[in-house]
Formats: sequence, structure tokens, C-alpha cells
Amino acid sequence: MSSDPAADVGLLAPIWAGSAVERASGDLAYLRAMLDAEAGLARAEARVGLVPPAAAKLITDCADSGRYDVRAIALRARDGGNPVIPLVEALRAVVRDLDPDAARWVHHGATSQDILDTATMLVAGAVLDLAIADLRRAAAVAAGLADTHRRTLTVGRTLTQHAVPTTFGAKAAAWLTGLLDAGDRLRVVRRALPAQLGGAAGTLAALQGDGIAVVEAYAAECGLVVPTAPWHTVRTPVAELASALALAVGACGKVALDVTLLAQTEVGEVAEGEGGGSSTMPHKRNPVRATLVVAAARQAPALASTLYGALLAEYERPAGAWHAEWRPLRELLRLAGGTIAVTGDLLEGLRVDPDAMRANLDLTGGLVAAERVALALAAEWGREPAQQVVREASLRAAEQRRPLQDILGERPDVTRLLDAETLDALCDPAGHLGSAEAIVDRVLDRYRRIEPERG
Amino acid sequence: MSSDPAADVGLLAPIWAGSAVERASGDLAYLRAMLDAEAGLARAEARVGLVPPAAAKLITDCADSGRYDVRAIALRARDGGNPVIPLVEALRAVVRDLDPDAARWVHHGATSQDILDTATMLVAGAVLDLAIADLRRAAAVAAGLADTHRRTLTVGRTLTQHAVPTTFGAKAAAWLTGLLDAGDRLRVVRRALPAQLGGAAGTLAALQGDGIAVVEAYAAECGLVVPTAPWHTVRTPVAELASALALAVGACGKVALDVTLLAQTEVGEVAEGEGGGSSTMPHKRNPVRATLVVAAARQAPALASTLYGALLAEYERPAGAWHAEWRPLRELLRLAGGTIAVTGDLLEGLRVDPDAMRANLDLTGGLVAAERVALALAAEWGREPAQQVVREASLRAAEQRRPLQDILGERPDVTRLLDAETLDALCDPAGHLGSAEAIVDRVLDRYRRIEPERG
Amino acid sequence: MSSDPAADVGLLAPIWAGSAVERASGDLAYLRAMLDAEAGLARAEARVGLVPPAAAKLITDCADSGRYDVRAIALRARDGGNPVIPLVEALRAVVRDLDPDAARWVHHGATSQDILDTATMLVAGAVLDLAIADLRRAAAVAAGLADTHRRTLTVGRTLTQHAVPTTFGAKAAAWLTGLLDAGDRLRVVRRALPAQLGGAAGTLAALQGDGIAVVEAYAAECGLVVPTAPWHTVRTPVAELASALALAVGACGKVALDVTLLAQTEVGEVAEGEGGGSSTMPHKRNPVRATLVVAAARQAPALASTLYGALLAEYERPAGAWHAEWRPLRELLRLAGGTIAVTGDLLEGLRVDPDAMRANLDLTGGLVAAERVALALAAEWGREPAQQVVREASLRAAEQRRPLQDILGERPDVTRLLDAETLDALCDPAGHLGSAEAIVDRVLDRYRRIEPERG
Amino acid sequence: MSSDPAADVGLLAPIWAGSAVERASGDLAYLRAMLDAEAGLARAEARVGLVPPAAAKLITDCADSGRYDVRAIALRARDGGNPVIPLVEALRAVVRDLDPDAARWVHHGATSQDILDTATMLVAGAVLDLAIADLRRAAAVAAGLADTHRRTLTVGRTLTQHAVPTTFGAKAAAWLTGLLDAGDRLRVVRRALPAQLGGAAGTLAALQGDGIAVVEAYAAECGLVVPTAPWHTVRTPVAELASALALAVGACGKVALDVTLLAQTEVGEVAEGEGGGSSTMPHKRNPVRATLVVAAARQAPALASTLYGALLAEYERPAGAWHAEWRPLRELLRLAGGTIAVTGDLLEGLRVDPDAMRANLDLTGGLVAAERVALALAAEWGREPAQQVVREASLRAAEQRRPLQDILGERPDVTRLLDAETLDALCDPAGHLGSAEAIVDRVLDRYRRIEPERG
Repeated sequence: MSSDPAADVGLLAPIWAGSAVERASGDLAYLRAMLDAEAGLARAEARVGLVPPAAAKLITDCADSGRYDVRAIALRARDGGNPVIPLVEALRAVVRDLDPDAARWVHHGATSQDILDTATMLVAGAVLDLAIADLRRAAAVAAGLADTHRRTLTVGRTLTQHAVPTTFGAKAAAWLTGLLDAGDRLRVVRRALPAQLGGAAGTLAALQGDGIAVVEAYAAECGLVVPTAPWHTVRTPVAELASALALAVGACGKVALDVTLLAQTEVGEVAEGEGGGSSTMPHKRNPVRATLVVAAARQAPALASTLYGALLAEYERPAGAWHAEWRPLRELLRLAGGTIAVTGDLLEGLRVDPDAMRANLDLTGGLVAAERVALALAAEWGREPAQQVVREASLRAAEQRRPLQDILGERPDVTRLLDAETLDALCDPAGHLGSAEAIVDRVLDRYRRIEPERG
Repeated sequence: MSSDPAADVGLLAPIWAGSAVERASGDLAYLRAMLDAEAGLARAEARVGLVPPAAAKLITDCADSGRYDVRAIALRARDGGNPVIPLVEALRAVVRDLDPDAARWVHHGATSQDILDTATMLVAGAVLDLAIADLRRAAAVAAGLADTHRRTLTVGRTLTQHAVPTTFGAKAAAWLTGLLDAGDRLRVVRRALPAQLGGAAGTLAALQGDGIAVVEAYAAECGLVVPTAPWHTVRTPVAELASALALAVGACGKVALDVTLLAQTEVGEVAEGEGGGSSTMPHKRNPVRATLVVAAARQAPALASTLYGALLAEYERPAGAWHAEWRPLRELLRLAGGTIAVTGDLLEGLRVDPDAMRANLDLTGGLVAAERVALALAAEWGREPAQQVVREASLRAAEQRRPLQDILGERPDVTRLLDAETLDALCDPAGHLGSAEAIVDRVLDRYRRIEPERG
Repeated sequence: MSSDPAADVGLLAPIWAGSAVERASGDLAYLRAMLDAEAGLARAEARVGLVPPAAAKLITDCADSGRYDVRAIALRARDGGNPVIPLVEALRAVVRDLDPDAARWVHHGATSQDILDTATMLVAGAVLDLAIADLRRAAAVAAGLADTHRRTLTVGRTLTQHAVPTTFGAKAAAWLTGLLDAGDRLRVVRRALPAQLGGAAGTLAALQGDGIAVVEAYAAECGLVVPTAPWHTVRTPVAELASALALAVGACGKVALDVTLLAQTEVGEVAEGEGGGSSTMPHKRNPVRATLVVAAARQAPALASTLYGALLAEYERPAGAWHAEWRPLRELLRLAGGTIAVTGDLLEGLRVDPDAMRANLDLTGGLVAAERVALALAAEWGREPAQQVVREASLRAAEQRRPLQDILGERPDVTRLLDAETLDALCDPAGHLGSAEAIVDRVLDRYRRIEPERG
Repeated sequence: MSSDPAADVGLLAPIWAGSAVERASGDLAYLRAMLDAEAGLARAEARVGLVPPAAAKLITDCADSGRYDVRAIALRARDGGNPVIPLVEALRAVVRDLDPDAARWVHHGATSQDILDTATMLVAGAVLDLAIADLRRAAAVAAGLADTHRRTLTVGRTLTQHAVPTTFGAKAAAWLTGLLDAGDRLRVVRRALPAQLGGAAGTLAALQGDGIAVVEAYAAECGLVVPTAPWHTVRTPVAELASALALAVGACGKVALDVTLLAQTEVGEVAEGEGGGSSTMPHKRNPVRATLVVAAARQAPALASTLYGALLAEYERPAGAWHAEWRPLRELLRLAGGTIAVTGDLLEGLRVDPDAMRANLDLTGGLVAAERVALALAAEWGREPAQQVVREASLRAAEQRRPLQDILGERPDVTRLLDAETLDALCDPAGHLGSAEAIVDRVLDRYRRIEPERG
């Protein structure tokens, strides 16, 4: 491992610096995966009888990332435009030193893209395994919040304004829904990650009639799926990966955006367990995890768009479209992996303040009951006068940021008809929750079907 | 229908102007879908017993798009920021004229987003039905090409350079793979399009305890799926739609990009059945359809990225993220629908020129045999001199754009050892096709499994 | 003008439906601009002596958009892949009817792209003129707010948390800065909009030696800049336009995003003059304009990215990259035009509530003075005990959402040392404004230099 | 410098691995720039009299990147969400060890964003200096090609089809135009890079009344421009940078895309001086540099779109939008820097083959003369029969890929009227170049105005 001053070590990436996903997707991980692909190919060809077993064994032994200088490979990648060419040269040289005859079987029948695409799928598999586990962790916490707070009153806000009451459990159920959707998609994509082997132009020409058998053995050696055909220029696997990752980042982003807003000083309904400090303001407790997740969610869609753009891949290997995938896909894998893990932490540490929720709800919560109060008054006064009184009271409630029932309760003409208890009942937001709890149950049922041992 | 001078009629959109998808997704189609959603809601509530059946019948009758001026609705949408508010007012007024009591049941328990989201899914369903049918048509042609040309020799090109021989059937099989992938994804998404009903803040508050029953009846009336929970701010359905559409456009784009390049004057291996004319150059036969498809494929990823960005939807209805979906999603639906249809036309009309393919292959095709010839010569001359002769000949072949065997055939020292027949056999690209045909078969098998009655 | 049911009339675009920019950029506006380009070309060629003046006059007369059916042109655009081909045919037919000899001078020496690119610049010019005027209007209001509220105390929020005091004038000055930046850029781009004339492949071949002279006359006739060279495949003008428009939308988006948040029910520091209603909730006053602007700001970057992608334009006219510009550029022009106008309205109608600002500031405002109070107490008690008391008080202030000075004022040990007046002075956020007012002045100075007669 | 296995060393980035821009923009470069910003701030405050000169000197001495472990900083950045917080702690600790009193002046009056934004502008300045120099180098070569090949005949291609003749000089002039446009824009942006200093919420509160003076001194110390106001949430500088970089990448991408196509085996008009090898195909000479540049050009627009999206920055520091800039901006800086340098290399090494151009032109070049021949024949035969003969001949020329004049020259009825010399003259593409050379001259004039000493 080079200690080149050009190395990047995550300084601008607090979302994943130091994480498991960073290790699973760094340059060294790619190097390992490329070597694993080369070794898997040799073993596959040995299985099929094309390569002597001893040569395959030797190639596998030599495909040990510790033997190679990733920086030197990176620098030599410039000549041929990809890192596989210098890596194959280096691997072949190592094998040749030990057994000159075996060297010819290195990279036999493959093209650079076969190795890099397969390696990318191996890296993706490792990242997805981490991501799926972290997403389960996050979903478990969200499910717990939905269940615990199924009756915790809070306000529903639309276009930033108080709308009608809801429960914090319903909010958590919405978060959970997004996380479950993302998990479903990630699992589908994880199971379908294909090996790539096509040779120079996708015909497996150099493997003569054994091509298909080699592909099958190769996929098995790599733990990947056998594709119907080489996908050098049919980049569905990359696009599918991109969409699943972007969905997961977006689902986490929804949670985090809500947290940043619910944690606003004036709102104060939730807080990060350990908020981040500030370089200037000692009194601040910033929603740092949520901020980093939101930041990730603002980056993922554009990365995905570059990967969708790479579907436009001409001929049997495009002059640019393939190369344009490498960095955005790795970045998206890392963003997703980091984001999901941080979202798990965020949810695990989330502090929920039902009192603050109730206090905020009371700012306008009674407004939703305006119609019910008006109906009650109208029975006595007639419709127009009743509406007039309630309208004025609502206006004052909003202006003074006081509960509607308090305003109404100050009017003797109202209290003569509706005693305090009746007024409170009419104004109680808990009476306006509709199917909030049933929806929570439906979402939790879905969760338990997916995670029977957890729910 | 207004004939407002502000109307757009597809002038800048030859990919879909005049198409079925245009009609299925225009402003009038959205108006109809919104009215269908309102009518479906009323009937659903009648089924559940909340709304008098006669009122539901009257609302359904009044929800006839011919009664409403879409331009007037559009203009009045500015005040509240969405078109549902003025549409509901207009619908309620029409109903009120006929039965004042029934008017109160219009839009009962729904919020604007419920209606627009459901309408969007209805429009998406109509577009997807068209797109899936057109994609089957395109796939059938691609399958035919793959089968017919399974042994039609052509050159595989990587990074724009001749690589090794392949078959045109293998190229068509790659196209088919992309189209099948897209079809699989579109069908999954089509089947999952959900209705939306949540009321003001996703709790179905106004429906009291009947919310879930109404949602189920509503989805049935609309022919959509019952969602586990309202998805006002969990935008998975929109993101999934975006990814499926972008994948389909990309799969078509791959076909079209290849066509534009294979149709180049110097390449001339395919041509559009009816190429487009030029406003200046009477001799031109432009690959117009392919050009329009490529243009679409350059637009789709960014549209999808905006839709993925809309996953970042705060609170119970976001102030902007939802509104940001409308135009990009419609544009993506149209682009996809138009693109798939045009790709079907393109493939149906494609003229394939095997002679041109062979002529191009012969420019360098023998090069792939260089190694085999060198081995044959080396048996007599030794390795170094043999390699030297072949290297020089290869260089001359490339410079003069002549087949390698012709160059070699002019050297008496070579022809002494290898007679013309032997040389031809060694240089025959048909002997270097590896698993091309097996791959074609695998892809056709997949096609036949999906389309048993067609394949 | 067709009343085709396929027409779009802005149903999904409340940001610009019914606006001046809609009229300036609709299909009819493009038709007019293409006809203006054709007429300008004929007159330019007459100036140079290539075309008989009478023919140029006749072509100009016939280039009246009222004579053409934009829908029919749109439908016929599919064959050749662009609308200029059928439009030229239609124009030529109209001219031919009146003077068969003059018909040959229609479109003389031009290619379709010349006409459509020039028309696009004409449309862009009209939209930019509107946008620049609306941006000046918005900037004038922002400047007024900055000036009026230069000492209106409010809280600065970072990562959604109260940070330190600032003024509402400083916030408005930040808005103004963005608007001025955008205006500067739009004006630069407006002045540089070039005519396009290159003929079939950019050599002006059909104009023989008079090409340059014709380009100069043509640009003059169209009111556009003479380009150094045809820009068929050097799309700087489009990319520059995209970046200026995206910047303007983003600058408005910053204003609007702040408005949606400052208008939150719990924050309540600003409100839209006439907030939008809701289809369900009569008590709501939604920040509708701000929401629409935020929605636009979420769409513009992706549109710009497609236009930047079109820089990748091969050969002398690309097969797709150019066609991919049309819709996104028009959409971006409209979004920008609509957004800027709505932002002007938003700012003009903005209601500012200094009392709410002060109340919110007081929730934590005293916290910033914690250090000053601690120093004052430390003089008597020593550093550690003083810090301890203040730390505890700060914590309680945050928990109880009460001003720090109130908490401190309840402690006899504190009030013994610091009387109420002193405590208030130490805790007064107005004493912590740094250079807020100087910054406002600097921004207003910049505004006045740009708008000397307004400031 | 850590040799952490998590480090990235450019393995997936052959476009910039090992380049000067890599060193100028790596994590270590950012660390240095942040330390330079801290040191510049201390010196600026010393100039203004706020900080003791000795403390500023000490801070400057301690702000030596060799003293800090960038990996440790990266890991500790997770807590507060940005790398400045741990860096300030580390710097303060180093200073404190040497002079406890001086430590309090570290980071005085600044917030994390001040330091990171300023550091980013310092990094951007270094990258832009490299990029501008490399762009001048590339432009010089393009200018040379335009001049040298001002009369080198080649074919103009539109929608991938032969259109009319042009010159290779005109193609190079188009490339040059894009490069000059990009250079103009990069220089404007380079000159305008601003320092950032605003303190906690943009008021420079902690600097009391000296804020503006400190900003001015700070900008001078950093070699950056004094902004009118802090731009914490008015991100014009970032958006402008993004647009200039994306324009430059796009201008290079146009060159490279043309090279990949002109280098196609069948076209063969240009070749990279040293084409890249292949891991499988020894005969290949891939346009590797062009491929890497095209790959970059496919990534830049999406990165720019994320940065334009960051204009949507709420409050006085956004919870995500700012953090979302870091990685995309650095990646875009590197892509642009690497791309421009590689494009310079590509152009310097480009091999141009005028004979191949002529041979390709002759495939259809005579077609452009069809009209002239038809006119000549019509004088004798009448219009219809003449057109008929030429049309048939054109068709055969296209089918047989032979020059039109050869086809016509085989018809005795034609040669009777037009002798070989006349026919050749009518068919000579050199007679159809219009203003190609004048356009080259105009572009070269522009180049010489910008680069008087070079041109």
C-alpha cells in the first residue's frame, strides 16, 4: 500500500470515512476483487479442463493483493485506459517467476472489461451485504418508534404549515415504509448481481466451444449469477444497482430531512442523541448525522443519472460510456453504504419529545375542531352567527399562538352552551386521527412479514 | 378544449408528436384521470356506505372531461399551486347545479395530492400499457434479427476499433437483451402502480374509521393497487417508475446509437428503411428515427434524477418536492412511450447489409488469425522469423486496408508453406466466433420463455 | 392554431401558466421565431445582393405565423426529425403561389439547424428580456427589505439550529446578492446571444464567397450577435444560457426556501401576502408561491445538465445531441422566466413580522451572551463557579424555551452582582450583530451601482 | 500521511491519476489549504490589530501540513460533520504547546465553513491555474491544425452521414472555438474566486466592528477576491465554478468524441499518436486518451447539476446543501484538470491522414456536384432527362461506394457532352468549400487576440 501524498483518505467524506463500506469499496478492495476475478477465472477454466489445475492453483495463490502496489497499477492504468491491463501484466509476471508455463493461463480468454465488471459486482455485493444489514437495523428502530408512538399526538404539516393532527408513530411508519421499500429493492438487486465474461467482443472467442461452461463455472467461483449473455454493452445490472442505491439513499434522506426540521430550535420535537458540536458556538447541538444524510441524498440522483446515461453504449465496447461508470458507481455505493449506516445510528440515538409535540400541536391543533364547534353552536344560534364566532376565534388563536379552545373558553356566550369539558372534547386532536393507527399496523404487519424473527 | 395561443402541440417533440402516448399523457388525459379519480372516490365511498349511491352516480356523470375547460383550470391552478383545487371547485359547481346536496360529497375526505397522485398513476398505467406493447413489438423484431443473422459475419468493435469477428445475430441478441430487461422491469412496475388516498396529512382523518375500507374500494374502482400506507412523502412508486422508464429509454438508446454508427457512410452495414430527408441535401438518407431515440436517451437520465431527488420530501407534504415531480414525470412517460414506439418502427424497417459487413470485416478480419498463421510458419522457420513476417504483413494490411491473407498470399515464402486454401482457412473469421451462436440461443430461449406464443 | 386534444396548456405548470414567458416560449412563439429567421435570412441575402429585394420582401410577408398550422408542422416534423423541414416546405409553397420565381430563395443557403438555432436564440432573447425585468423588480423589493430591516433583530440559524443573532436586513441582503449575481449573468448572456448560419456542414458552401457578409447581415436583421464561426457543434451559447438560467432559478430558490421555512407555523416570521388555500383545510394559508419556486429550483439543475451533456456533439451535426437540447432548453427558459416573475410577486407581497422574530430570538438569544455573563460573574466568583452557573442556566433556558436572562434573573446570587439592567445589556442580542449593518450597506452599494436610478 | 488501507490512489481514475491536478486537489492539498486559510486569518487579524503579531506568526508556523495526520482528521470529522472542527482542535493544541496564550487566537472569529470554503477556493485556484495553462497548450495545437489544414479536404458529416465537403482545418477551428470559449470562462472565474469569512451566521459577530477590515486583509493574505458579503448561503461562486469547469470538459469532450469517430477503423482519418493497447488484442491501437476524455465529459454535467442544486441553501447555513458540494466539486475540479491535460496530449500527438480523408470524401464527394452536372446536361437534354440520369448515377455511386464522376464517366451519353476534365471540375469538392477558409481565419484571429505572442 502506497503512502503517496496523492492519496485520498476520506477527508471530504464524513458520511463514510472509517466505515466498513469504505474498506469494502476502496481502491484496495477493487484491487482484491480484480485479483479474485482473475483467480476465479483460472479455477473455472481448470474445472472445465482448459487450464491445468496446478496453474489455476498457482494463479490463485499469486492473486494475493498484498503482492501488488495499487498506486503503481493506478499510474500504469493511464496508458491503456484501464487498471486491468497493468494488473494482468503484474500478475503474469509474478506467476511467471514461479512457473513460466503457468503464466500463459493468466487472464485466459478474458478482456479487461470482464475482470473490472466482475470485480465491480464483487465490490457491490460486499457493499450491499453491509447496506442490507444496516437497513434492517434502521428499519427495526423505525418499527419500534412506530409501535411505541402509535398514539403519540403530533401535528401533520403540509407545505410547512400545520395541517391536521397525526401521530409520531404514523411519521415513523412512513419512514419505515421507505426503508422497507429500499430493502426489498436492494435484496432483489443483490441476488441478481451477475458475473461478466465475454472476451474481446462478447463472443468468448478465445474459449472456443467451452465458453458457456466457463462462464457458468466462473460465476460459481465468484459467487455471482450466470448472465444470459455478456453485458459489456447492455448495462442493465449497473442501472439496476444505481436505482436501488439511489432509492435507499432517498429513503434515508426522507428520514433525515424530517429530523433536521423536527429538530429545529422552534420545533424541538426530536433531537439527535449526540448532536454535533460547532467550531464557534458551544451551545449548539447540531443534527449532524441527519445533515450528512441529507447531503448524501442531494448527491445520489446525479450519480445515478450518469449511470443511466451509460446505457448509451455503442458497439461491443463503448469509447467512454463504460469508463464513465467507474467513479460514479463507486461513489454511489459508498454514499449509500455510509448513508444507511449513519441513518441507523441516527434512528438508534433519536430522542423524541412528546411534550414538545403536544405543545406545538396546541398552537393550532384546535383549529381542526373549528367545524365541530361551529356545528354545536349552530344548533342554538343558527349557522351564520356560529361560523362567524368560530372564524374570529380561529384568527385570534393563530395570531396569538394560543389553543382555539382557550380563546373560545374566554367567551361567555360560548361557555354558556359548551362547558369546558365539552369544549375540550370537541377540540381534542386525539379525536381526529382517522386511520393513523390502522396505517401503523399495516406497515408493521409488512415489516413483520419481511422480518418475522424481529417484529 | 381551449385553442389558446399558449398551447403546445409537440412542435419540439417529434419523438412523440401525434403518437398514442401523446394522447394518453397530455393535459386533457390528466384532466380526465383526475376526474376519474374523483368519480372513483365517490363510488368507493358509496360502496362503503359513506356516500349516497345516487350522489356517487351523479358525481361520476359530472366527471366528464368534456364539461371542463382545461386551460381555465390551468390558469386557476396558480392560486393554490395545483390544478386539483380549481378542478374540484368546478366539479362541485357542476354537481351542485344538478343536486345541491350531492355537491358536499365531491372530493370527500381527499386532499389535492390524493387526486393528482392517483391521476398520475392512471396516466402512467395507460402509457405503460402502450409502452409494453410496443416493446414486445420491438423485441419480436430484434429476436427475428438475432435468429436470422445468427451466422451473419460482422466485426466486433471496441473503443471504435475492429476487435474480433462476431455475428450480426449476436449484436441483435444484445439489443434484445436490453429490450427484455426493460420489458421485465416495466411489467413489474405496471403491476404495482398504487392508488393514493391519505387525506390532509395521511391519516384519512375525514373518513373516520372507514379509511382503510375506502382506500381498498377506491383502488379497485381505479384499477390500481392498494398501498400499505399513503405515499404522500414516501415516493417509491414515482422513483420506481422513473427507473423503469429510464431503463427502457436507455435500452432503446443502445439500439439506436448502434444504428446511427452502423449506418455511417463509411460503415454502411445497416440503414433505416425510410431515412429522413434534409432541408438542404437531397442525396442524404439520415437515420432520423435512431437520431430521435438517441436524443431521448440523452434526456431521460436527468429527468429520472429529478424524480429521485423528490424522494427528499419533508413533513407530511413537501413544499416543492412533490410539485417538482409533475412535469419531469410526464415528460419521462412521453419520452419513454415515444422512444419505444419509434424503436419498434426503426427495427421493423431496418435494412441489413451482410455484404457490407463482410467487406468491413475483411478490412482487418484476418488480423485475428495472425497468431494462427504465425504458429504455422514457426513450425518451419522458428518463432522469431515467423512473428516478424506476420507483424510486417499485419501492418501493411492495416495501412492498405486489405485483408491479411491477400498480403500474405503475395509472399512466395509464405505460399510455399501454406497454400491458398490453408491460408484462407487459418484466416477465416468464421472460425473465430467462439460461443456467439450459443449466446444467441440463450437469449432467444429467454425471449421465448417471456413470449411463448411469439418465439 | 390547432385545438388538438393533444395540446398542452400548462395544466401541470402553475409556475408559468398564463404568464408572459409562456407566450414568449410556446410552440407558436417558436414558429414565429423560425419564420422570423427565414425572413431575416432572405433580407440579409438581399442586402448582400444574392436575392432580389422583391423576393426578400415577399418571403418576409409570407413569413407570417398566422398562415401556418403549427400542429400540422409538428406532425410532419417526425419524418425528417425536425420542424424546420416541413416549415420550409410550407413557406415555400405559400411564396410559390404568389411568385414561383421567388420560392427558390426561401431558406437559401441555410440548413435546418441554422433556422432552429437562430429561432431558439430569438425566443431566449424574449424570455431573457422578461426575466431581467422581473429580476430587477425582485431585486428592488429585496433591496427595500434589506434597507428597511437593517436593524430588525432576528436569529441566524445554521443546520436548522439557532446560532447567533442577525438582522432580517442581512437575510434580505443575502437574497439580494443572489438576485444581483443572477442578473449580472443573465445580462452578459443576453448581450451575447448569437445568430447561427453555417449551411449544410458549417462552411456556408451554398453562399459561395458571400457567406461571411450574409452572416453579418443576417445577425443584424435578427438582432443577434455575429458569431466568430458557426456553432452547430460548439454549443457554448446553449451551455452559457443554461448556466445563467439555472443560476437565476437557484437564486430565487434560496429566497423561496427561506420563505417556506420562515413561514412555518412554529416560526411564523414571514408570510406570503396572499397564501394559497387548500382543497381540504380552510384554515391553511400555504406559502404557495414559495413552494412553486422551490419546485422549479429542484428541476433546473437536471435540465441544465442535459444541456451541458449536449456539448458532446460529434461531427458537423450530431445524431441526437442537438435534438436533445430542444425540450430541456425551452423548459428551462420557462421555468426561469416563471420562477423569477413569481419570486418578484412573492417578495412584493411578503409580510414580515419583527415581533415574531424577536420572540423566536428570545428562545435562545441570550445564550450568545452566556460568555459575557460568565466573565462578569467570574470577576467576583472565579472562573469555574461562574462557568458552572451559566452552563446550568443555559441548559435550563434551552429546555424551558425561556430567555437566559430570565433564568439568571431568578437566581439571587446572580442578581446580587448584576442588576436587571446590566443583565439585560449583557444579554441583549443587538450588541452581537458584528458587521451585519455594514454588510447590508455593501450589498446595497452594489445594488445602487447596478441600478443607479432605483437605489 | 497515513498509509491506511482505506486510501484511494486513483485506481479508477486514469484521467488524472499521477497528474499535477491530482496533487493540487487531493486530501493533503485540502488540508494544506485549510491550514493556509487559518494562517491567513491570523495574519489578517494581526494586520488589523486584533491579534498579536507574534501569535499570528506562531499560528502560521504551526499551520504546516506535515504536522497533521490527514486520516485522523478525516475520522474525527464525523462527529461534527466537517473536517475543520478537528483540524482547529489539532492546530490549537500544537500552538498551545508552544504558547498557551496564542492558542486562543486560532480560528478567531471564523466558522468552519469560512475555512473550508476559503480552502476550496484556494484549491480551485491551483487547479484552474493548471487547467488554464493546459488549455492554452491544447488551443495552440488546435490553432496549428486549423492553420496547417486550412485547405485539407475532408467530408462534413451530419447525423453520421456524408453531407458536403469541408476542410480538416475547419474541423480544428471548431475544436479551437470550444477551447477558447472554455478558456475565456475559466479565466473570468479564476479572477473572481472569493475568500469567505462571515463567522457563525454571516455577521462577523465575533470581530466586533473590525469585520470588514479583517475580511479585506484575509482575502489579500489568501490571494483571493474580497466578496461584497459572506456567501455561506449564496453559492454563486460554486455554481460559476461548476459551469466553467463543465464547459471546459464539454469542449474537450467534443474534440475527443470526434477523434474516437474519425479514428474508427473504417474511417481512419486520425489516430492517437500512441494509441493504447488491449489486454487481449495485440493488433489494436485504441484511442485511449480520447476515450478517457469522453468518459469525463459524460460525468461532468451531473456533477455540475449537484452543485447547482446546492444553490437551494436554507437559513444561514444549510443542513446538507453545503456538505453536498464538497465531493462533487473536488471531483469536477479533477475531472476538468485531468481532461484538459489529456486533451492537450491527445492533440499534440494526433496523427492526421489527409489521404484517408480524401478517399472517404471520394466515396460520395461527387454527390454534392450532382446538381451542377445536372444543370450542364439539362442545357442539352432538358431538365427532366438530365435529372433522371444524375439521380440514377448518384444511386449507383452510393451503392457501389464509387465516385459519382466515375459512374458518369462510364456513360457515353454523358461523356459526349462533358469531357473528363469538365466532369472532374464540376465534381471537384474543392470547389464547394464556401467560406471554410474565411471561417478558419476568423477563429485564428480570435485566437491571436487572446494569445498575441503565440499566434
